[in-house]
Amino acid sequence: MRIRTMMLGAAVALALDAKADEGMWLPSQLPQIAKNLKEAGFRGDPAALADLTRAPLNAVVRIGGGTGSFVSADGLVVTNHHVAFGVIQYNSRPDRDLITNGYVAPDRAAELPANPDYRLRVTVGFDKVTDRVLAAAKGKEGRAYYDAVDAVSKSMVAECEKEEGIRCSVANMFYGRDFYLVKQLELRDIRLVYAPPRAIGNYGDEVDNFVWPRHAGDFTILRAYVGPDGKPADYSKDNKPYHPPSHLSLATDGVAEGDFVMLAGYPGITYRHRTAAEFADQVEWRLPTAVSVLKALQDVIETQGKTDKDAGIRYASQLQTLKNGIKRFSGELEGLRRSDAVTVRREDEAAMLAWLKKRPEGAALQPEIDQVMAVIAKGKDVRERDFLVGLLSSQTQLLRGALSLDRLAVERPKADADREAGYQKRDEELIASQLKQIQRRYDLRVEKALLTSVLSRYQALPDAQRLPELDKVFGRTPAELVKALDRIYADTKLGDEAERTRLFAATSAEIDGSHDALLVAARTLRPALLRIDDERKTREGDLLRLRPAYMQALVAYREAQGKAVYPDANSTLRVSYGKVTPLIARDAVAYAPMTTVAGIVEKNTGMEPFDAPKPLLDAIRKGDFAGYADPATGAMPVDFLSNLDTTGGNSGSPVLNAKGQMVGLNFDSNWEAVSASWMYDPRYKRAIHVDMRYMRWLIDKVYPSPALLRELGVPAK
Amino acid sequence: MRIRTMMLGAAVALALDAKADEGMWLPSQLPQIAKNLKEAGFRGDPAALADLTRAPLNAVVRIGGGTGSFVSADGLVVTNHHVAFGVIQYNSRPDRDLITNGYVAPDRAAELPANPDYRLRVTVGFDKVTDRVLAAAKGKEGRAYYDAVDAVSKSMVAECEKEEGIRCSVANMFYGRDFYLVKQLELRDIRLVYAPPRAIGNYGDEVDNFVWPRHAGDFTILRAYVGPDGKPADYSKDNKPYHPPSHLSLATDGVAEGDFVMLAGYPGITYRHRTAAEFADQVEWRLPTAVSVLKALQDVIETQGKTDKDAGIRYASQLQTLKNGIKRFSGELEGLRRSDAVTVRREDEAAMLAWLKKRPEGAALQPEIDQVMAVIAKGKDVRERDFLVGLLSSQTQLLRGALSLDRLAVERPKADADREAGYQKRDEELIASQLKQIQRRYDLRVEKALLTSVLSRYQALPDAQRLPELDKVFGRTPAELVKALDRIYADTKLGDEAERTRLFAATSAEIDGSHDALLVAARTLRPALLRIDDERKTREGDLLRLRPAYMQALVAYREAQGKAVYPDANSTLRVSYGKVTPLIARDAVAYAPMTTVAGIVEKNTGMEPFDAPKPLLDAIRKGDFAGYADPATGAMPVDFLSNLDTTGGNSGSPVLNAKGQMVGLNFDSNWEAVSASWMYDPRYKRAIHVDMRYMRWLIDKVYPSPALLRELGVPAK
Repeated sequence: MRIRTMMLGAAVALALDAKADEGMWLPSQLPQIAKNLKEAGFRGDPAALADLTRAPLNAVVRIGGGTGSFVSADGLVVTNHHVAFGVIQYNSRPDRDLITNGYVAPDRAAELPANPDYRLRVTVGFDKVTDRVLAAAKGKEGRAYYDAVDAVSKSMVAECEKEEGIRCSVANMFYGRDFYLVKQLELRDIRLVYAPPRAIGNYGDEVDNFVWPRHAGDFTILRAYVGPDGKPADYSKDNKPYHPPSHLSLATDGVAEGDFVMLAGYPGITYRHRTAAEFADQVEWRLPTAVSVLKALQDVIETQGKTDKDAGIRYASQLQTLKNGIKRFSGELEGLRRSDAVTVRREDEAAMLAWLKKRPEGAALQPEIDQVMAVIAKGKDVRERDFLVGLLSSQTQLLRGALSLDRLAVERPKADADREAGYQKRDEELIASQLKQIQRRYDLRVEKALLTSVLSRYQALPDAQRLPELDKVFGRTPAELVKALDRIYADTKLGDEAERTRLFAATSAEIDGSHDALLVAARTLRPALLRIDDERKTREGDLLRLRPAYMQALVAYREAQGKAVYPDANSTLRVSYGKVTPLIARDAVAYAPMTTVAGIVEKNTGMEPFDAPKPLLDAIRKGDFAGYADPATGAMPVDFLSNLDTTGGNSGSPVLNAKGQMVGLNFDSNWEAVSASWMYDPRYKRAIHVDMRYMRWLIDKVYPSPALLRELGVPAK
Repeated sequence: MRIRTMMLGAAVALALDAKADEGMWLPSQLPQIAKNLKEAGFRGDPAALADLTRAPLNAVVRIGGGTGSFVSADGLVVTNHHVAFGVIQYNSRPDRDLITNGYVAPDRAAELPANPDYRLRVTVGFDKVTDRVLAAAKGKEGRAYYDAVDAVSKSMVAECEKEEGIRCSVANMFYGRDFYLVKQLELRDIRLVYAPPRAIGNYGDEVDNFVWPRHAGDFTILRAYVGPDGKPADYSKDNKPYHPPSHLSLATDGVAEGDFVMLAGYPGITYRHRTAAEFADQVEWRLPTAVSVLKALQDVIETQGKTDKDAGIRYASQLQTLKNGIKRFSGELEGLRRSDAVTVRREDEAAMLAWLKKRPEGAALQPEIDQVMAVIAKGKDVRERDFLVGLLSSQTQLLRGALSLDRLAVERPKADADREAGYQKRDEELIASQLKQIQRRYDLRVEKALLTSVLSRYQALPDAQRLPELDKVFGRTPAELVKALDRIYADTKLGDEAERTRLFAATSAEIDGSHDALLVAARTLRPALLRIDDERKTREGDLLRLRPAYMQALVAYREAQGKAVYPDANSTLRVSYGKVTPLIARDAVAYAPMTTVAGIVEKNTGMEPFDAPKPLLDAIRKGDFAGYADPATGAMPVDFLSNLDTTGGNSGSPVLNAKGQMVGLNFDSNWEAVSASWMYDPRYKRAIHVDMRYMRWLIDKVYPSPALLRELGVPAK
């Protein structure tokens, strides 16, 4: 670090002094780190945050794949524009374009019902069930361990969900060390109250995605409704607003650089406590391989698309997904390399193991830790094969259809609870729709070219990784592959939509007896795919059994250094704390942590995605920021940056000040932080938030709703 | 500005507080602004800088199209790597690749002679000749005024250049108000002493061009030699080092943010004192038109290049030039719009004219100012026509050849002094080489397509702008144009190199009698081109006569506001002062004014242009920066940023500290400052300099030359 400190005075001092505010804490851990929280600037009582089923944390809810929070006693919920986008889209019609124009409900009667499958979940129970799970798995290994955990989890969930309006799940903390039964009240009547136009809510769109400085007003306000009896209900005009057990207050002051902030939400998944070998695998093999293989597939589609415009259109969506994946994986790789993550994690783990050797518990833990390493090492032997086999269905249309139909034939005869996830009764609708949309997404030449790209790579694998079933179907040489693909695709009728519909409705026996070349191929591949599945579950079962020893050592080692350990993210409610922090992105490049409306004008080209609506530009020109502007500078804030620890799923998380009042709404991360799912690097990890002053100013001055501001407790100025 | 002040504390305060350190001052003006210089931090005596033919300013020289400065008593000169690139290239051979490897002369005998046309000029005289010029032009108008100034200038230059080894020119200050006879000693034996590898001197190349933060070591050290008699001489091994009248000292301390700096050099051309109408013309017509017309030509070449690879290669260089032009013009337009230059200049001029009305001299000046406006307005009537006609030769190969041969036939019979600039005896070699290289740069279909693009636009002009000669040659409709081009290019032999060589050697009478269709076309166009020339010179003559009234008003108005006025840049020696200044490029985006070697490592991809040599990377890793690192941070500096007023021609200018010691070497501007040739916007105008600590560290630790450091007065650490 020494050689990169010649920087902008204040900003740098702050960035370099910043303690590593890393951590997605379980609320129950907060009393344990109360001292750190207080030192960081929190002015409330950490003990009051310990129970996520009580105020204030029970105001923080899961909604539409992200996070939201109650902000009024009558069930107002604030979340991101992009989290509520489906609701806005569902209510848009050619004559009422809410995407373009936004929406301001003039009164409660005008609040618009969300799409029927939009859900809000309030966590009402969070109970440790470790003993019950481990008792069921005791004495088992591998696949049996995996199945035992799976079965007892399913049974607890079924029992829990007997209560009406309740959804349950089992969350696994510290990789098999602890299990929690999560109980959530699921509300089904959610309505649109206030949405800014797309050109505010998603200002900058893909161009600004992952970018700081940012200038989006990425928020939307909804309201939860329940039946007249106060219970969850489908939409009905007789429903009434839900009264949440608690709600957050909007701050009337704003934040400034260096201020304490905290955030609560439902982060999806992180890998921070994975072993050094898994870090190395990710950086040295998995990410570079994924980038190279996906790039080859991108090339295939682009090349075919050049000469065949129709094929180009059919594969546009798949191409976009490939590009997003390549961008994300490249960014993650770049970030992990910049942070020297492999070395850092390797040295950390080596120090932990050396420390453990001298501890009394070391002798007991070491054998299991050794086994963890062995299981992970064994996975490496087949990693490339498994990755390529996965692409056979994820990157094809017709072959995927055949594989789905074949697996469905295997699963359908079983009891629903025993069927493989993804092939249960509730999944059949999705499979049917995938089979249907093949019509718009398939081209014979492209599919063959994509398969050739993937299978050529497979054919180059060493013998130890070969699957006899795959070799039988596709041959062992490029020449055999060409012939095999020509033959299979010449002899299949799966390209015909009516035929696919017929097969979806057919019995397992009919599928099993089909002579369609693709179905025969799928049937031939079946044992190999089931074997790969079984090997994966065996490894996962062993890791579930063994990793707790590794985690126990890690937690003890950290505690010996005076540090608490949070479990890796798993979509349960977590709390992070940190501060409003600038970003020194590169040598001599510093980003201030606050943006202003001046930046909207600077970026505005008048063309999507930089086409701020006229009312906003007029209001900026008018400069009526009284009551909302930053008191120190007179500037009108838009977004701000913090070092809060977040990941996917934290979209819409409320950002609170030291007094627990809401000052921001989390909506994105910076590009340099794409790798944070593996490593929190305090130099680069930032989260991007809408400044609540900007939201309030928009609701007050630009697209006014005085009633809404009154209900939010922050009346118009 | 109020709405964009929410920024990084210290950096912003500095950037916004910065006085407009605008000004490319004549040395003779420095005593007049001594108070400002002192207040800005200069610790020397401004009066000592007033005479550019005495120390220290006579150490600052013109070299290879840029600026250089003497840095030792034995004639060492430091300038940019890119200013000395021709010298490095000239001395490179397959077995001695100085571009890639750089060069460290082990001793004086090993100093390598530059290409024979490489020149260094020391200014030895700078005398006001206004009276003589104005006396010659007195009572004349328009073309006659122009010719009189031209004739008396040529005669003074001829007289002045009678002295051996002396080159002279007449410089026009304040648009015709003052004239100076500039006398320069021209040294012809320049040798290469020290050059870093290309991957240091031009680290980042086109990608980083106009970019801050920058990480290039853009310097090279040369030595000037003279004959045994001390007079300028061509290279000879008997020559000896030149002893300059003075040389600059290298600072042993570095600079820090906010420090005073000054710079001396030969800026090429600026338009800061042009009228409001000329600003509007530039922003509203000239730049957008140039971008649109050049883009159309780019399209032509790219489209043809796609189907005809050979044609693509022939036009690669012209395409690159078009792209550079489009980029530059777009950047200038963007910058002038961002600075709202048209409005700012219009309001400034209106205020000046209102002020003038109340002044006693107002009545005398106003009529001439009105005439300035009228002449400029009249130029607008034919601006598009003149622009398009100019492209007929600048964007073609064969037609340009024909036009050159035709004009040469007109000029050759005259006395050399009376021949048009560009067609004098000394220009004939260049014309011959242009005629020769047509062979590698011409393609029939591309030339016709380019002409069609330009002439279609011409054909759409209103009748008032039409040229009968042009209509006669190319027709008045698109259909006629196609026929005309087909006919002309079918009936010309100018595509044949031998024929062009023959015609170049032919007499004027032979050219005048030729039946070659392109030469006939050129002859037909000739009166129109001469008429356009004459109209331009008439306008320029009138502006030379009239603008001094406008300038007199402007200077008086500024002086009434307590501000001195510098003349627009014209390749004469100027001095700027300012400070090391960060850049707030956009909302929340701040650039520190210093870069460090850490940034080289960050940018390095191992691929050109980010392929720092291994010895540099090793030295950075080793971290031996003692004596060169920034004392406050321990970081090793590379480049720094200031708000110094510069433009093209300032490349290689020495940057001095408050004590007059050299702390940097100017080499580029930031992208946001491309528009500075018209307007100095203190928010965005920055200049980019090599930090002399980086240069010294490279010479000490990476590619060592202890003898060189001793001669530079800064021995190795």
